[in-house]
Amino acid sequence: MGILRLSPRSPAFTSLTTAHVSHLRSLLSSPTSLLSPLDGSATSDDLTAFNVDWMGKYAGKSQVLVKPKTTKELSTVVKWCHDRNVAIVPQGGNTGLVGGSTPIHDELILCLSNLNAVRSFDPVSGILTAEAGIILEQADSFLASKGFIFPLDLGAKGSCQIGGNVATNAGGLRLLRYGSLRGSVLGLEVVLPDGRIWNGLSGLRKDNTGYDLKQLFIGSEGSIGIITAISILCPRRPTSTDVAVFSVPSYAACLKVFSQAKAHLGEILSAFEMFDATSYEAVKKHGGGGTGKKVFGDESEGPFYCLVETGGSNAEHDSEKISSLFETLLSDSLILDGVLAQDASQAHNLWQIREECPSALSAAGKAYKYDLSVPVEKMYEVVERMKKRMESLEWVGGKVKDVAGFGHMGDGNLHLNVVATEFSEEVQSAIEPFVYELTAEYNGSISAEHGLGAMKAPYISYSQSPASIELMKRLKKTFDPKGIMNPYKFIL
Amino acid sequence: MGILRLSPRSPAFTSLTTAHVSHLRSLLSSPTSLLSPLDGSATSDDLTAFNVDWMGKYAGKSQVLVKPKTTKELSTVVKWCHDRNVAIVPQGGNTGLVGGSTPIHDELILCLSNLNAVRSFDPVSGILTAEAGIILEQADSFLASKGFIFPLDLGAKGSCQIGGNVATNAGGLRLLRYGSLRGSVLGLEVVLPDGRIWNGLSGLRKDNTGYDLKQLFIGSEGSIGIITAISILCPRRPTSTDVAVFSVPSYAACLKVFSQAKAHLGEILSAFEMFDATSYEAVKKHGGGGTGKKVFGDESEGPFYCLVETGGSNAEHDSEKISSLFETLLSDSLILDGVLAQDASQAHNLWQIREECPSALSAAGKAYKYDLSVPVEKMYEVVERMKKRMESLEWVGGKVKDVAGFGHMGDGNLHLNVVATEFSEEVQSAIEPFVYELTAEYNGSISAEHGLGAMKAPYISYSQSPASIELMKRLKKTFDPKGIMNPYKFIL
Repeated sequence: MGILRLSPRSPAFTSLTTAHVSHLRSLLSSPTSLLSPLDGSATSDDLTAFNVDWMGKYAGKSQVLVKPKTTKELSTVVKWCHDRNVAIVPQGGNTGLVGGSTPIHDELILCLSNLNAVRSFDPVSGILTAEAGIILEQADSFLASKGFIFPLDLGAKGSCQIGGNVATNAGGLRLLRYGSLRGSVLGLEVVLPDGRIWNGLSGLRKDNTGYDLKQLFIGSEGSIGIITAISILCPRRPTSTDVAVFSVPSYAACLKVFSQAKAHLGEILSAFEMFDATSYEAVKKHGGGGTGKKVFGDESEGPFYCLVETGGSNAEHDSEKISSLFETLLSDSLILDGVLAQDASQAHNLWQIREECPSALSAAGKAYKYDLSVPVEKMYEVVERMKKRMESLEWVGGKVKDVAGFGHMGDGNLHLNVVATEFSEEVQSAIEPFVYELTAEYNGSISAEHGLGAMKAPYISYSQSPASIELMKRLKKTFDPKGIMNPYKFIL
Repeated sequence: MGILRLSPRSPAFTSLTTAHVSHLRSLLSSPTSLLSPLDGSATSDDLTAFNVDWMGKYAGKSQVLVKPKTTKELSTVVKWCHDRNVAIVPQGGNTGLVGGSTPIHDELILCLSNLNAVRSFDPVSGILTAEAGIILEQADSFLASKGFIFPLDLGAKGSCQIGGNVATNAGGLRLLRYGSLRGSVLGLEVVLPDGRIWNGLSGLRKDNTGYDLKQLFIGSEGSIGIITAISILCPRRPTSTDVAVFSVPSYAACLKVFSQAKAHLGEILSAFEMFDATSYEAVKKHGGGGTGKKVFGDESEGPFYCLVETGGSNAEHDSEKISSLFETLLSDSLILDGVLAQDASQAHNLWQIREECPSALSAAGKAYKYDLSVPVEKMYEVVERMKKRMESLEWVGGKVKDVAGFGHMGDGNLHLNVVATEFSEEVQSAIEPFVYELTAEYNGSISAEHGLGAMKAPYISYSQSPASIELMKRLKKTFDPKGIMNPYKFIL
């Protein structure tokens, strides 16, 4: 799986023994809250799903899994670890892509799954207060029943947890409409590295009384505390939704389609996604069953596709706006063709084309995946330049099957995939650090939304200045002087 | 003006002398960049507008005003101060309400007015990069010429500066629509307390590479660095705007009007403001000239008024939505009457009623002003309980003329005014800390948007836990170990 560049185990951390496990168990309310081969309560295999990430790329060797049932209990465990220099990896749904939620060595795994209650919901303000371990899709279903929507959506919604979403500052499919979690999260409850509970849960949209501490925890990837509950401002659920996919003759035309979409759809535009022909071919070949994936005639298939979604409060008005967009795009020859979903099932089908791009490209070969922020005008140049590099090595059609790009165009967020026949050091070295240098050249970010984790921690200097990294190290030290929180990752 | 509860001067800071001024002057490119009575380049009177806040409530005694022309020059000044333990107060438009931007004693005033260039604007992404000293209204006018809008609007727009807006995390009139600056600010350039320039300017909507350092500076009130430039995501300017004011029979009905407005107007709702009859009477009596302030017949004037604004991309659709809201409100007897602006001038006039509430109440007597966040359902209870307290003291009609409330109802942000005949310790002691205790009882915030400054710094514990305050002190110490940045304020 290539070179993972992981840090060696730090001798500063305590290795857990059977005696430790026995003591720790005495602090927990239920015997099912601690699983360990050390005292025979579990086999090593039982811990595999927690030690290894879903891609099988990162494999830790933790012997102790704790699943506290309350914030108080979690706080007791963290204090116990703090007092004994025991390293901890907090884990939500373990759906990350950068090796951030699995142990690197033998860290104690603190799993949030048992903290999964909705604490309150206020239908006047739309504020939800809920525990970290709730699955995103469950939180959204709960809100749907009240006429509201969770202001975040992403492919892993069926298994990712809202605490993990906040801890990694997840972006996803509707950031264009609902903005970043940094705007919608109103408060957090966090267990600090010394075990203290920080109650920063707030039901207020506005509060200017000191530094906004919660912002430090949002996107901190478990490095300075464990998020145990969040309060978040949820918008009303749109009562009307439209989805269209356009086939587009060039990336320059995609930019114009984006501009026209903003002008015609204004406040109802809720997503603007792009995928290239290579991605689309992979979906047609390897995507989920059904013939519905081919939605254009051969003659109208182009090199690019844009998916546009609207969400509004008046179906008639929304339909008029999207029809007017469609007409302009056709009359200005900005698109080759377009498909407008006629019902919810067709809308779902169109979304699936875009949502299946990552898995279809993985099915097409061994896919090296990069999550980059690049100014939207230049976004696709990154794909072209990577392809040119592979061509100059005369690898395309050989070691490398193809180079593909798709992503959240509305946010300038490109998912670049280099599909190889095999994972090898040779191919990886040709891609990295080239891809990071390329991104830095565009003043982009080497991690738009996936985070640093173990994978990108060594490369942070491509996106952050020495002054920033120095400040981040000071912050880490201020909050976690013993360095027990999610070590070997994020800020090294 | 009541008890200001200011901290005494710290002996740790250097008192500036003529020799200091001479040395400092040698570091600056222009003689007009430093004004000081110490070397005769200015009189004390020349510095009054910088030493005293606009309300005349806080009066410092600084002898040195520096107005750097570039970030580099500002950084040199800060380093010079840092090396000599010279305390600094950064100052933008000096429009704050809590004594945050004027010196408390003899701090050097660092004025941002000369840093006022637009560095770049990208019409594809809507990202503006501009220096801190630009006046908010000028930034918005620049954006208007490009078809965009600054995602913040407030009464002081004609004199406040965008750097100060970000440093105080200003909220204002359209937070309901465009969200908090924490979501829309993408990057900052900051001069750190040791004089280093931190370049955190970013043109990216998404960047998950480490702690989001800029969030620490947003709302930090100059306590850990000086914001010299910002990059901010600006939405398209709505092409259609409607404004209506409703006369409402009760606060319970206001809540229902709010709920109906959200349901009918959905994504085009851009502001929802409330003012009570006491505020409205003051505007009619003391507001700006013209007869247009009385917009309802006597029989339809009620105890409450709601102002609703929409901003959309299709005038016909927007007008249909607001008409349908109007019909529902009338048929459900939720309003006594309503006025829908027929043109831009009438819309401006309706907005003025709401915008003149603060100045009109100040003109009606000596107004004690509080800026509170309270859950919206309970918001007006705070006004009623304060009035009851004044009544129980038998002061209403005597020492206290009236108690009024208005504010950003959409955000649960109440501006409470106690209008007295005179400012006195007796009246102030009856209001404070009662008003803060009351706010704490509702789990509210004692500063929704105005910040802590000198005024509320001593009261932070009504809104923040001891653990939060301790973390904030650690952060202040981490960034500014010498404590030279805006001392005697914010975190004491």
